Amino acid sequence: MTLHVFDAAVALEPIGDGEFRGRTNPAYANFIGPFGGMTAAQALNAALLHPDRLGDPVAFTVNFAAALADGEFEAQARVARTNRSTQHWIIELKQAGATVATATLLTAARRETWSSHEVAPPAVPRPQEVARTTRRAVEWVKRYDMRFIEGRIPHEWQGQGDEDSLTQLWLRDEPPRPVDFASLCAMSDIFFPRIWLRRATQTPLGTVTMTVYFHADADLLRATGDGWLLGQVRGQGFRNGFFDHFGQLWNESGELLATTHQLMYFKE
Amino acid sequence: MTLHVFDAAVALEPIGDGEFRGRTNPAYANFIGPFGGMTAAQALNAALLHPDRLGDPVAFTVNFAAALADGEFEAQARVARTNRSTQHWIIELKQAGATVATATLLTAARRETWSSHEVAPPAVPRPQEVARTTRRAVEWVKRYDMRFIEGRIPHEWQGQGDEDSLTQLWLRDEPPRPVDFASLCAMSDIFFPRIWLRRATQTPLGTVTMTVYFHADADLLRATGDGWLLGQVRGQGFRNGFFDHFGQLWNESGELLATTHQLMYFKE
Repeated sequence: MTLHVFDAAVALEPIGDGEFRGRTNPAYANFIGPFGGMTAAQALNAALLHPDRLGDPVAFTVNFAAALADGEFEAQARVARTNRSTQHWIIELKQAGATVATATLLTAARRETWSSHEVAPPAVPRPQEVARTTRRAVEWVKRYDMRFIEGRIPHEWQGQGDEDSLTQLWLRDEPPRPVDFASLCAMSDIFFPRIWLRRATQTPLGTVTMTVYFHADADLLRATGDGWLLGQVRGQGFRNGFFDHFGQLWNESGELLATTHQLMYFKE
Repeated sequence: MTLHVFDAAVALEPIGDGEFRGRTNPAYANFIGPFGGMTAAQALNAALLHPDRLGDPVAFTVNFAAALADGEFEAQARVARTNRSTQHWIIELKQAGATVATATLLTAARRETWSSHEVAPPAVPRPQEVARTTRRAVEWVKRYDMRFIEGRIPHEWQGQGDEDSLTQLWLRDEPPRPVDFASLCAMSDIFFPRIWLRRATQTPLGTVTMTVYFHADADLLRATGDGWLLGQVRGQGFRNGFFDHFGQLWNESGELLATTHQLMYFKE
């Protein structure tokens, strides 16, 4: 059985005392450095692999402090607090002794309660009815099958943007892979910069922080398997060098797996 | 000149090496322990007061790891990374040596760029046309003037909730106080639990994590002064012990000051 490219990329090697060694993977390369979603998944994985972990991820925030250089990094995961059914983590990724990413994670043992998904998935065609995007300028994009319904990447950079930055798309790993917390974390960063839709202009930019709330527990992820996810995302504010977006990821049955928010910097 | 109650409560005393001592303030007491918005503002303040800080807050995530006991706490702020125009912080609050809150913060020196607020404020009556809420069961609520337009706290806990959890309200400090990053952070936690609207049932609950993206820079906060803020918030997913919401805060001129999201736990 061949290791899936995502599993090969997200893998970390324990080097003792809650520390792990990882490396960037050319299969998830971005314009410069790695796809942030893979870096996020690797940071999350440092806690997932930690022997002291209790429960599954519920809330994860990762801050991209510096561009990762291609190559190795160290991941340090530390338990800040363990409660009866929840645990709080602080995670840092370092290269050459300098911090390149920070993260905090809440894990929890979840129990069945009243549940309701207030944010309903939009009415969209099935994934089989939507064309796969062929715009794959960077390597990591080839690791996903993306089928845009609304809000495609601009075809011309003529500086005439749309009035809103809504994107809806079907997505899954390519080749398909059963979703887990690490891959759901990575897929939460799949949305291209909202400013591209608003301005149709290319300006230097990058994600500085991303938060993922895992509404799905392990049972719901198992039920989702390697099926399609429906992603929706929209920008909120763009001001003086930073803009944010908020998004949702559902499975094909319409169950909410994750909500996510991020802030990007931009240059002009 | 009398010190505003918010300033008295958020104050920290330096005890050396990036550490500060603070205390809970009875004026911001919640049902149990302090108002989380005040704890968040105090955690933020540890970085704001730090001599090594560069730039103003842009993105802040605080994780409530344990209920704070009434009394003193220590706040530790550490620079994880300093770049040319951004800085990344890790903050911890401790009581009796145990971590009660963790936080990460991005500060930045901001420059004027293309700007646009995609999320427009809803059309609502002016604050002077909206009745002030008189429902003030806990102390911290008296520190704010809140004028609900949509989505009030249920009057009867009869277990018949609304179909959605949208709330819109005007708010400001009581007495009025010029908004700053710390008070905007606190006000981001002013929204009552969305599950109260959906279920009209009281269940044990608490915020476990909150993120604030500061779209406002210092100039926009100065222009806002002690004016009214318009807050809007809505839940997304409620599932197996946790639910989230996302919200926005505008000033009375309709400029977006902050976007915020949080995750709460609930019991049943």
